[in-house]
Amino acid sequence: MTIKFSGVWPAMLTPLHQNGDVNPQAIDQLVELFVKQQMGGLYITGSTGQWPLLGRERRHQIVERTIRAAAGRIPIMVHVGANSTEESVELAKQAAQAGADAISAVAPPYYPYSADAVFEHYRRIGESTDLPLYVYHLSNTNVLSLDAEDYVARLLKLPNIGGMKFTDGNLFQLGLLQAAAKGKLQLFSGADEVLCQAVLCGTIGAIGTFYNVWGPICRQQREAVARGNIAGATEFMLRFQVAIAKVIRSAGIHKFLRRAMQLKYEIDIGLPIPPLAVTDREWSDADVQEILSLVDG
Amino acid sequence: MTIKFSGVWPAMLTPLHQNGDVNPQAIDQLVELFVKQQMGGLYITGSTGQWPLLGRERRHQIVERTIRAAAGRIPIMVHVGANSTEESVELAKQAAQAGADAISAVAPPYYPYSADAVFEHYRRIGESTDLPLYVYHLSNTNVLSLDAEDYVARLLKLPNIGGMKFTDGNLFQLGLLQAAAKGKLQLFSGADEVLCQAVLCGTIGAIGTFYNVWGPICRQQREAVARGNIAGATEFMLRFQVAIAKVIRSAGIHKFLRRAMQLKYEIDIGLPIPPLAVTDREWSDADVQEILSLVDG
Amino acid sequence: MTIKFSGVWPAMLTPLHQNGDVNPQAIDQLVELFVKQQMGGLYITGSTGQWPLLGRERRHQIVERTIRAAAGRIPIMVHVGANSTEESVELAKQAAQAGADAISAVAPPYYPYSADAVFEHYRRIGESTDLPLYVYHLSNTNVLSLDAEDYVARLLKLPNIGGMKFTDGNLFQLGLLQAAAKGKLQLFSGADEVLCQAVLCGTIGAIGTFYNVWGPICRQQREAVARGNIAGATEFMLRFQVAIAKVIRSAGIHKFLRRAMQLKYEIDIGLPIPPLAVTDREWSDADVQEILSLVDG
Amino acid sequence: MTIKFSGVWPAMLTPLHQNGDVNPQAIDQLVELFVKQQMGGLYITGSTGQWPLLGRERRHQIVERTIRAAAGRIPIMVHVGANSTEESVELAKQAAQAGADAISAVAPPYYPYSADAVFEHYRRIGESTDLPLYVYHLSNTNVLSLDAEDYVARLLKLPNIGGMKFTDGNLFQLGLLQAAAKGKLQLFSGADEVLCQAVLCGTIGAIGTFYNVWGPICRQQREAVARGNIAGATEFMLRFQVAIAKVIRSAGIHKFLRRAMQLKYEIDIGLPIPPLAVTDREWSDADVQEILSLVDG
Repeated sequence: MTIKFSGVWPAMLTPLHQNGDVNPQAIDQLVELFVKQQMGGLYITGSTGQWPLLGRERRHQIVERTIRAAAGRIPIMVHVGANSTEESVELAKQAAQAGADAISAVAPPYYPYSADAVFEHYRRIGESTDLPLYVYHLSNTNVLSLDAEDYVARLLKLPNIGGMKFTDGNLFQLGLLQAAAKGKLQLFSGADEVLCQAVLCGTIGAIGTFYNVWGPICRQQREAVARGNIAGATEFMLRFQVAIAKVIRSAGIHKFLRRAMQLKYEIDIGLPIPPLAVTDREWSDADVQEILSLVDG
Repeated sequence: MTIKFSGVWPAMLTPLHQNGDVNPQAIDQLVELFVKQQMGGLYITGSTGQWPLLGRERRHQIVERTIRAAAGRIPIMVHVGANSTEESVELAKQAAQAGADAISAVAPPYYPYSADAVFEHYRRIGESTDLPLYVYHLSNTNVLSLDAEDYVARLLKLPNIGGMKFTDGNLFQLGLLQAAAKGKLQLFSGADEVLCQAVLCGTIGAIGTFYNVWGPICRQQREAVARGNIAGATEFMLRFQVAIAKVIRSAGIHKFLRRAMQLKYEIDIGLPIPPLAVTDREWSDADVQEILSLVDG
Repeated sequence: MTIKFSGVWPAMLTPLHQNGDVNPQAIDQLVELFVKQQMGGLYITGSTGQWPLLGRERRHQIVERTIRAAAGRIPIMVHVGANSTEESVELAKQAAQAGADAISAVAPPYYPYSADAVFEHYRRIGESTDLPLYVYHLSNTNVLSLDAEDYVARLLKLPNIGGMKFTDGNLFQLGLLQAAAKGKLQLFSGADEVLCQAVLCGTIGAIGTFYNVWGPICRQQREAVARGNIAGATEFMLRFQVAIAKVIRSAGIHKFLRRAMQLKYEIDIGLPIPPLAVTDREWSDADVQEILSLVDG
Repeated sequence: MTIKFSGVWPAMLTPLHQNGDVNPQAIDQLVELFVKQQMGGLYITGSTGQWPLLGRERRHQIVERTIRAAAGRIPIMVHVGANSTEESVELAKQAAQAGADAISAVAPPYYPYSADAVFEHYRRIGESTDLPLYVYHLSNTNVLSLDAEDYVARLLKLPNIGGMKFTDGNLFQLGLLQAAAKGKLQLFSGADEVLCQAVLCGTIGAIGTFYNVWGPICRQQREAVARGNIAGATEFMLRFQVAIAKVIRSAGIHKFLRRAMQLKYEIDIGLPIPPLAVTDREWSDADVQEILSLVDG
C-alpha cells in the first residue's frame, strides 16, 4: 500500500435517465464538478450510488465512464460489494482493468453470515486484483461482533488491504479500530453526521452521501477542525446535523438530492430505481433552498 | 382467490453442480420425493433456495424445471422477491408463464424502505400477473412497524393478494394478523421451530427449510395436532426444536442439509453459492445421523 | 423439590388506597375470588404487583396478608427480586416465615450484570430459605445470552431451584429450556399472549397479569387445549390476543385493570404508585366492557 | 437559571465500609481530591454512585456528607432519580435542604413508561425544589423515541429545568438536542469514551465515571481541544478509549476503580453492594498500573 488517500469524498450519486439507463453526460458533469471542487476522491457504485439496484452491466458502465471522465485528476474507489463472491470478484477485476485506484466492498448482505465467511468473501475479492481494498463497514448490514483488535487482526491478513470505510455513528468503536490498526490501515469515516467529530478518532478522510451537495464546505470545515478551529466546526456541525436530520426525517432523501443538485449545480441525476423513492413526496424548491442555505450559510 | 392451499411445504433447496450451474436432474428428484411424500406444495427460489445469489437466469431455469417436473401434481409457489421492482415483476411474469400456482415476494432488502415504498413494490408485483401473491414477511429484513390491523388493511388492498408467509417466531403478531384478516388471507407460518404452536394462530399451513429433510413427520405432526394430539406434538416439538438448534448453532446449516439429503434420500443438492457455507465445517455422517434420528425417532 | 405446581396463576394485582397504603380488605377479596375460581396459585409482589415501587415494608405487608387470607387453600409464590441481593434475601426469609409455598426472583435490574453475577444473586437467594426458587426470566431485563443447555445447567446448580417463570414470547427458547431441563425444572409461561401455544413447549402452567381479569376462561382453555381442543383454543387465542393488544396499545393497562376488576368482580384495586399510570387516560365503561366481552364471549 | 456550570465532573464513587455502611471519611478524601484537582463539579449518587442499591438513608447520608465536605468550594449536583416519583421528590427536597447546587434524575427504570409519564415524573421532581434540574438521559433505560425538537420542547416546559446529562455515544442525537435547545439548556456529555468528540456538539461539560481516576488529564484535554489542540486530543482519545475498553471488557470495572483509587490516591472506596462485582475477578496491581499509565502517559 503506497497511495495515501485523504480528504472528503462524495459517495457519488448515480445519474440515470428516465428509462433507467445510465446517464453518461451527467456522470461527466459530476466528475468535473468534484474535480473543480478539489474533493479528495470519488467513491462510486456504493450504497448512495444504488449498487443493489443497478445490476452488473450498469455498474460496469458507470465505473468505466467515471474513470474516463476523471482522467487521473481525482482518485476513484469502486465499490464492488455484491451478494455473491463471484460477482464481486468480477466487478473488482473490471474496476482494475478500467483504471480504478482502489476497490471497496460491503459485507455480503441478506443472510446472517459468520465472521469467517465475511472475511473469506473479502479475501477472495482482495486477492483478485492488485488494488488496495477498503472494507465498507455498514452498521445495518452484517455487524461483526468481533472486538476491535480481532477485527483489525483479520483485516490486516487480507490481501491488498488498504483500510476501511466505517459507516457507523459509533465513535468509540471507530477509535478502537484506529488504535488497534497502529497506522497500518487508512480509516475513512462514513457517517456524515459526525464528520468533524470523527477527526478526533484519527480518520484519514470522510466518504459520504451529503458531500455530493455540500462538498466544499465540508472539506473546508474538516480541514479547519484539523487546524484547530473548534468553535467554527462546532457551530457548523450543529447546522449540518440539523440539515441531515431534516432530509432523513422526511424519508425523501433521493428527491432532495436530485433537486438540490439541480438548483445548486444544474446537474440532473434523475430518479432512482424503484422501489427507491417510489412513494417519496416531491420537495418544494423553497424547502430545498432552506436546507441548502442552512448549511451553506 | 379461489385456490385453497394447505399443509406443510418445503422451501425447496436449489440443487447446484460444482460449477454453480443448476442441476435439473436433482430438481426432478426433489420434486418426485415431495410429491411422493404428499407435501402440501413447494415454495421455490426463496431464501432457502438462495435467491439472492442466483441471478435472473438461474432463477428462471429453476422455476421452469420445477414446474415441468411437478406437472400439476403439487402446487408451486415461486418467490420473485428481488432488490428492484422491475426484476421482481419480470420474475413474476416468467413464473406465471411457466405455470406457477402462486407468487411470493419478500420486502425489498438492503435499504431501509418506508412502509409506503414496500407496499408499492408489492402492488406492482401483484398487478403484474393473475396469480395470487403471498407477501413473505421475514423478521430480519425490513420490519414494518405497522400494527396488525393497518398491515392487514394494506395487504387487502394489494391486487391478487393471497396471504402471507410469516417467517418470524413472534406468535402474538401472527395471531393479530390472523385475527385482523378475518379469513380473507391465507397465512403460512415460516418459522419451523414453532411449527405446531403456530397452528393455534389459525395458520393454514407451514413453509420452511427443514421440511426438505423432515417433510413427512412434520406433516403428520401438524395434522395430528390439528386433530388434538397435544401430547404427541409437545413431545415432538421439543425434539424438533433441539434438532434445529443443533444445526443452527453449528453455523453449518447448508452442509448439514446437503449431507442429510444424501444420507436420507440419495439426492445430492451440491454446495451453495459463495459466500454461503464457504467456511462451514464438514459434518460427520455420525453427527448428521444423530440429528436425523433425533427427529425421525 | 416435592410440590408439583400447575395451572393458571394470576400475577396478583396489588390493591392500594388512594394515599398509597396497602388495602388489606381488597387483598382478602382478591384471594377469595381466586380461590373460588380454582386458580392454580398466586404469584405476588411481581411486576404486575408493582414490586419496584412498593418498598420493603409494603411488600412484606402484602405477603403476610395474602398468605393469611389464602390459609393454605391456594399455593402462594412470592416474588422477592430486588435491586440488591441483601434486600432479596431479607424478603425471601420473610416470605418463608410468613408461610409462602415458593419464592421467585427476577434478574437484578438497572445495571448490565454478567451471567455470573446474576446466578450468584440467585444462589444467595436460593440458599437463604428452604422454599423452592423460581427464576423469573423477563425479556426486557438482563437477558442472558447463554444457550439453553448452559442456562439450565446453571439453574440446576442453584440451591432449592424449582423452575422458571419464562416471561418472553420466544417459544423456541422456551422449548429448548424445557428440553434441556429433562423434567428437572417446572416451567411456567409468563407471556399471556401465547398462553395455549406455550402448552406445546411442555410448560407446567402459566402465570400472568391478565389472569386477574380472565382467570377461569384462561384456565378452562388451557385445560381444553391440553385435552386436545385445538379448534376451540385457536378461536379463543385469537380473541384473547386481540384483547391484550387493545389494552396494551392504549398504554393504559393499569386503569383498564382497575375498571375491569370493578365492573366484573366489584373489587377496587385503586390506582398504582406514580409514575405508573400518572398520565394514562380514563377508560369508558363501554370500552372496558367491550374488551371484557371479547374474551368472555 | 443563573448558575453556569462547566468543566469535567466526576460521577463520584460511593465509598463504603465492608459492612455496607457509608464511609464518610473516604467521602471527605474524595471531595478534597476533586477540589484540589479543580474539577468542574461533583455528580453524586448517580449510576456510578450505586443509587439503585443504596436505599434512601444511605443516599441522604452521602448527600449531606459530600456537601458539608465541599463547603461551597465545588458545585454539587445530586442525582435523585428513583423508581417512584414520591421517592425522587423526597430525595430532591433533602438535597435542596442540604445545600445542593442542582439535582438530576434518570427516567424511571424497570417499566416501559410512556414519554408522557416520564415527563410528568420529571415535572413533579422539578417543581419540588428551586434547584435547577438536569435530566439524566441514559441510553439503556427508557429511551424516548421523540425527535430532538419535541424532546427539547418538553424539557423546556419543565419547572426549573437546567439541562441534561446525555449518557449515550450517539453524537448525532446529542447535536440535534443542542441545536434544538438554542442555548436554553446546558448539556453535559456523559459518555466518557467520546469526551473530546462531544465538545464538537456544543456540550458545556462532561460528567462520568472515569473522571474519578483520570480527572485532571481529562480536564486538560477537554480544555486543550476547546482551544484547538486537535492533534493532542486525537492522540489522547485513542489511548483513553483503549483504556476504557480494557476495563469494560474485563467486566470488572468496580474492582479496577477501587484498586486504581488506592494506587493513585490512597483512597479506599471499598467494594460495591452485591450483586455488583460479586463475581468479578481481582485485578493485579500490574494490570491496573498498566491501564493507568496508558492514559496518564
